Amino acid sequence: MALPGPGYSITMRVEAPPSASAAGDLTTAVGQAGGVITAFDVVESTAGRMVVDLSANALSAEHAEQLTAAVDALGDVHVRKVSDRTFLVHLGGKIEISSKVPLRNRDDLSRAYTPGVARVCQAIAKNPEDARRLTIKRNTVAVVTDGTAVLGLGNIGPAAALPVMEGKAALFKKFAGVDAWPVCLDTTDTEEIIRTVELLAPVYGGINLEDIAAPRCFEIEARLRERLDIPVFHDDQHGTAIVVVAALRNALRVVGKDITDCRIVVSGVGAAGNAIIRLLLHQRPAEIVAVDIKGIVWEGRPGMDPNLADVAARTNRAKQQGTIHDAIVGADVFIGVSAPNIITGADVAAMADDAVVFALANPDPEIDPLEAQAHAAVVATGRSDFPNQINNVLAFPGVFRGLLDAQAHVITDDMLVAAAEAIADVVAPDQLNASYIVPSVFDEQVSPAVARAIVATCSPTPRAGGAKASAAGVHGAAAGFAPDDADPTAGV
Amino acid sequence: MALPGPGYSITMRVEAPPSASAAGDLTTAVGQAGGVITAFDVVESTAGRMVVDLSANALSAEHAEQLTAAVDALGDVHVRKVSDRTFLVHLGGKIEISSKVPLRNRDDLSRAYTPGVARVCQAIAKNPEDARRLTIKRNTVAVVTDGTAVLGLGNIGPAAALPVMEGKAALFKKFAGVDAWPVCLDTTDTEEIIRTVELLAPVYGGINLEDIAAPRCFEIEARLRERLDIPVFHDDQHGTAIVVVAALRNALRVVGKDITDCRIVVSGVGAAGNAIIRLLLHQRPAEIVAVDIKGIVWEGRPGMDPNLADVAARTNRAKQQGTIHDAIVGADVFIGVSAPNIITGADVAAMADDAVVFALANPDPEIDPLEAQAHAAVVATGRSDFPNQINNVLAFPGVFRGLLDAQAHVITDDMLVAAAEAIADVVAPDQLNASYIVPSVFDEQVSPAVARAIVATCSPTPRAGGAKASAAGVHGAAAGFAPDDADPTAGV
Repeated sequence: MALPGPGYSITMRVEAPPSASAAGDLTTAVGQAGGVITAFDVVESTAGRMVVDLSANALSAEHAEQLTAAVDALGDVHVRKVSDRTFLVHLGGKIEISSKVPLRNRDDLSRAYTPGVARVCQAIAKNPEDARRLTIKRNTVAVVTDGTAVLGLGNIGPAAALPVMEGKAALFKKFAGVDAWPVCLDTTDTEEIIRTVELLAPVYGGINLEDIAAPRCFEIEARLRERLDIPVFHDDQHGTAIVVVAALRNALRVVGKDITDCRIVVSGVGAAGNAIIRLLLHQRPAEIVAVDIKGIVWEGRPGMDPNLADVAARTNRAKQQGTIHDAIVGADVFIGVSAPNIITGADVAAMADDAVVFALANPDPEIDPLEAQAHAAVVATGRSDFPNQINNVLAFPGVFRGLLDAQAHVITDDMLVAAAEAIADVVAPDQLNASYIVPSVFDEQVSPAVARAIVATCSPTPRAGGAKASAAGVHGAAAGFAPDDADPTAGV
Repeated sequence: MALPGPGYSITMRVEAPPSASAAGDLTTAVGQAGGVITAFDVVESTAGRMVVDLSANALSAEHAEQLTAAVDALGDVHVRKVSDRTFLVHLGGKIEISSKVPLRNRDDLSRAYTPGVARVCQAIAKNPEDARRLTIKRNTVAVVTDGTAVLGLGNIGPAAALPVMEGKAALFKKFAGVDAWPVCLDTTDTEEIIRTVELLAPVYGGINLEDIAAPRCFEIEARLRERLDIPVFHDDQHGTAIVVVAALRNALRVVGKDITDCRIVVSGVGAAGNAIIRLLLHQRPAEIVAVDIKGIVWEGRPGMDPNLADVAARTNRAKQQGTIHDAIVGADVFIGVSAPNIITGADVAAMADDAVVFALANPDPEIDPLEAQAHAAVVATGRSDFPNQINNVLAFPGVFRGLLDAQAHVITDDMLVAAAEAIADVVAPDQLNASYIVPSVFDEQVSPAVARAIVATCSPTPRAGGAKASAAGVHGAAAGFAPDDADPTAGV
């Protein structure tokens, strides 16, 4: 079903004869083997031969090998070397640290480092809130993982999780000017994770928990929220929940239903499912029925952990029992954050008219989205090769931009709801349709809109100081401040 | 004794009449009050008045207030606002995180983040050493503090220590292309500090301990060296020791003495003194006598902690007892890393001919350096306003550049000695004199020379991979790599 994409793109360095037909032979060989040529660069050319870098997208690692073999099989052609472009992008890591201050000469050094820095340290020791003015704390977030639930790969450990955390940090900067730093912890012990984050916190204005397995993630988040004076956000829970609620808001606009009339089935009660249910409850739907691997969740079902028991207590008032196929009959909305291919076209056909189906399991959804489209009015997935991608990138950068700008000490459900509404409302009424219920991740309106919604919810009248902090954080030009831009007179 | 310097520089925004003499009146007022004008910028000028930003260096915060008062006292002049330029430099923090990869479109996102990143994670899970190739670990160092011994300020806590750690990170980047990140821990418990650094280590290629009080710092360093497979360096110990040994090597060249003939007195047996003694012992001096607040350190002196007892066992073979004034008589070298004004000109006069005096206590040395110069052949301090500044910036950037390039798992005393020799040898024979025993901190030869010395000591035949890592780390251009630059074929 999938097409060759840039996630599996290779570059072959090929020696070929300098004949008129050689280029055509190369690209034809790749095309016939099912690859998609994306670039053809001549590296070297002499009377006797040419050397070409041939870039192509493949379906998988095996398919990439087939493309290479197809080219190498051509007469008088030799593949010298094959490079994986995804690996090339990662060489040496994806983020780096830059100095925002000049260090050209002794005067610069005297201000940014010793002896001048001592006065800045003393000012913070005297007034700890000054750390948000005079240090990176103002614009910095820790992206914390233990590497136990990384993408769909499971428990691969902290070192192997680092490329994801670096990518996240790059996205934080790109989409919201936030400085995010990877914290990959070499432990899976709940108490050690909590204590370590607590000890690290002085440097940060917020904590983004990431790819930590459930149910440990719930306790870690709850306990850190109690202990820290900076906001703690678990992206796999709240980031996903925000975007799902945003998408659902627009999907229901498309089908003309009110959420208070809707019966919603949520499949999967891990980190994401849990948070989605909690955030949906704020919208007062007619009913939510949760389903996990053992079937429908109902109050009194034996063997539930405290977290699941809490979900049971707050959903499924009719105490329905049975399988996912029982739950879905007559439902207005299906939200899957669970496992591939667990419902069928017949299940979707059994839903209410104008059904909404979010099949978000990655990389393979709960149902083939083309099959769902045959019976549902609106379909969304987590994939980038179908319309309506539910992507956390729509939420987390703007959420932290807002939290940092507001110098927030906590994050509340009201903020999450406000963020979801802001994302939904970026799609203008004349743009809205069944294939466009969420904005593009590259829509530059999204992150500022989310940030404004967070700031507005955090404090009804944002302080001037907060807005200024934002400007400095995004542009990073503290050294250029004129005397009027701030009040740096603490030391005088 | 000190002169107005850039560490206390202010900018006053002043309203004055637009008369021909006004500018002269302003600068004269500042000069007569003892300030040094560094800039005069007209912000606004009309027929009736002008607004000027007047920048000046002061001696202290009180002196800055006196300068302001002197200007404000002028007829028809009004000081609107005073900004402290050191605080302006710190607004919003001194470092930021940048993305090294493009994120312009969906293809970029697919390679740097999901879905492409999953294959990179899997490669590292399969072969953990790949983390040094495919993540920031290759070029990244943690600057770890508990905020207990920050500059001369003592125990000011982790938040107030952050400006120093940020400054250190900025210097790491400026002088050696190393990405360093501040880790300011909200605990002073030895076990918690050790365990936290251990848990954080997967992201880093090296650990730089900073401003942690003695004797806790010794145990933390020793235990982390046992537990981690990356080098652990305590800058207050080893950075200082490297530069002292480098400076002493050149000072002895100036006076024509061999260290094996020298009697050396070291005043102060904290982090720096301890490491200096240990590194000097590798050079086999004729004798070292250590002195602390209780007087000469001798084997058997009551009440010594294990660390001091170890120093006692390895120095002062004659078991001399007494005060610092007794120790210094006849000594060839005095090295002070202790407290202000504890020796006199008479003490220096009592040293051997062609005495070498390093009075490194900050900001006020063990003896006024002008007084020491009257009796010694070579004098060095920790201050930037005298010749021969002993500054750790000469050592730590190049040390970590070398450790990262060599992908070193440990740091050895041989490396520290090699680094010291490399720093000393940057001063060419025709440059060497009593006022120039160490290179300038802005000498661009220093850091590469130190890095080369570390790499050479680490592995006699440096691997090609190490040198490539360095190039990528400094230039940070992984995305631009051509297929020949590396072997990114792990996924194909």
